[in-house]
Amino acid sequence: MGSGFGDTLAARVAARESQIVLGLDPDPEALWPGVHDAADTPRAEHLQRQNAEPRQHAEQVPTTPGDRSTTRRTDHAPTWRAAVATRVHCCALIDATGPACVAVKPQLACFERLGAPGWEALEAVIEHAHQRGLLVIADGKRGDIALSARAYAQALFERLRVDLATVNPLLGGDAIEPFVTVARAAGAGVLLLVRTSNQGAADVQDLELASGGPVWERLAAFVAEQEAAGVGEWGLSDVGAVVGATQPQHLQRARELMPRAVMLLPGVGAQGGRVEDLAPAFLPGRAGGLITASRSIVGAHLATGGDPAEAARAEAERLRETAWALGDR
Amino acid sequence: MGSGFGDTLAARVAARESQIVLGLDPDPEALWPGVHDAADTPRAEHLQRQNAEPRQHAEQVPTTPGDRSTTRRTDHAPTWRAAVATRVHCCALIDATGPACVAVKPQLACFERLGAPGWEALEAVIEHAHQRGLLVIADGKRGDIALSARAYAQALFERLRVDLATVNPLLGGDAIEPFVTVARAAGAGVLLLVRTSNQGAADVQDLELASGGPVWERLAAFVAEQEAAGVGEWGLSDVGAVVGATQPQHLQRARELMPRAVMLLPGVGAQGGRVEDLAPAFLPGRAGGLITASRSIVGAHLATGGDPAEAARAEAERLRETAWALGDR
Repeated sequence: MGSGFGDTLAARVAARESQIVLGLDPDPEALWPGVHDAADTPRAEHLQRQNAEPRQHAEQVPTTPGDRSTTRRTDHAPTWRAAVATRVHCCALIDATGPACVAVKPQLACFERLGAPGWEALEAVIEHAHQRGLLVIADGKRGDIALSARAYAQALFERLRVDLATVNPLLGGDAIEPFVTVARAAGAGVLLLVRTSNQGAADVQDLELASGGPVWERLAAFVAEQEAAGVGEWGLSDVGAVVGATQPQHLQRARELMPRAVMLLPGVGAQGGRVEDLAPAFLPGRAGGLITASRSIVGAHLATGGDPAEAARAEAERLRETAWALGDR
Repeated sequence: MGSGFGDTLAARVAARESQIVLGLDPDPEALWPGVHDAADTPRAEHLQRQNAEPRQHAEQVPTTPGDRSTTRRTDHAPTWRAAVATRVHCCALIDATGPACVAVKPQLACFERLGAPGWEALEAVIEHAHQRGLLVIADGKRGDIALSARAYAQALFERLRVDLATVNPLLGGDAIEPFVTVARAAGAGVLLLVRTSNQGAADVQDLELASGGPVWERLAAFVAEQEAAGVGEWGLSDVGAVVGATQPQHLQRARELMPRAVMLLPGVGAQGGRVEDLAPAFLPGRAGGLITASRSIVGAHLATGGDPAEAARAEAERLRETAWALGDR
């Protein structure tokens, strides 16, 4: 065997000596200083015009015979500009911190709000991360039934060619299955939401079931059910879980329920989670726990001052060292 | 008051005498005959080339100073072609069946798998539906925390300018709130997944809670909690629910729990649900229940033979009449 995503991840974590995932949640209003200047170079402006123009023409495609009336009032140039700046920002962040990371995690919502230009930026950022030797985790929390689930899986694993994607399991087993099937065929993996890092997670995920245990343990069972088929030589499955780092008391139990699962651990840093509390995640090996951080890295310079790229690099490296040391226990 | 989405919907349902929602789940491999020919006209091909070209140029934007090496091997022309065909297909379907419908419901997954060109097609289809006097329900089942939820809401209600969007409530109240806030500010509404139409829905949504009742009733409580703030003059809220038409036994209970909610009722037709079983949804008025159908309309000609547009029009009109008659009870 040894060809599934569990092995891919374990080998990559070992080679890069990192379990850190750089979260990419770009807000066009809060990009690094200088990024908008880079997006304003004559070449970039020329490209923005090129990109904006066909959009205006495309609006005049006859949608049905005899209908040529379709026009839009939207001015797309600002969006293309924001998308180019977003792309430059994300690539600069990847270049600064990539050596300390094993993966990047673009938040699809942040690109989606820029429409088609945002989708183009997303594809370019993914390509850039791959070229820097990083895995890509699409954080879209998609979830739907049957054919729609399959279409989402195709978008993620065949079109965007990401290595992992977060999936929302509320719709049950038949809605999860297409994601696993398409991911596995692409040598990629799936991360099911099990216990998220936000306060409101308790509203549904922590509800106690009549049969015993909270709802999130039932979600963990989906992961456990899928584990066996996808475990590779390194002992890790290609179906993993999102388990918030803000509730470390859940981690030990989650690991019991999902012994082979890769755990994505959001909530370190700005949300209050501490790397030191995450040891149970690493029981099946260092690649068993992926620590994702976004604001604490991209905004490191706000606390330390100095160059944003240098501050981000230092913070990513500090996280990497702290987490890597845990693996020796 | 009377300015919220509940009133908008009620007025539109009354004016169009329809509660039918046309589901748009385009599969590039199964579009109406002739659509690909329309996408092959010289003008469309010219536009495809224009659309494809800047993509190739854009790949050469320097992502960081000194980096000009980024290139991709992907040939984008087939995707642009599929996206144009998808757009032509959806617009033809809207033109054929729109007069019998009150809204269209694009399944975002089906556009997303075509990448940026798919997103462009989605925007054009939404615009076309609006021009035909139809409301637009984005079926994306998005759900995420805090800033990400806000970004999704911006993508849906500010960028795509849809009138309603389906939202996955697994992440709890603080993840739902940004969708409601952004929607309400835009005069739009939100539909929370409460009990979906697929078989696997039972895996999580039907689990019995220790405190009594199934999980889906807790999801219905999110809707009920939001109802009061958003109820308009016609007695309908701007926060509604997705309740599968495949399990009509749940409908009566769902209506008790969510007396003011607009209910989107998927599962009629291909999935086995019957319009005749949906009466409880219409208790607060005809606009209280929106009946969505996709495959049974777009594929009507496969059963009846003849012109796809004419068969689709007849099936949509048949559904409209059947549902409208229920409202007289």
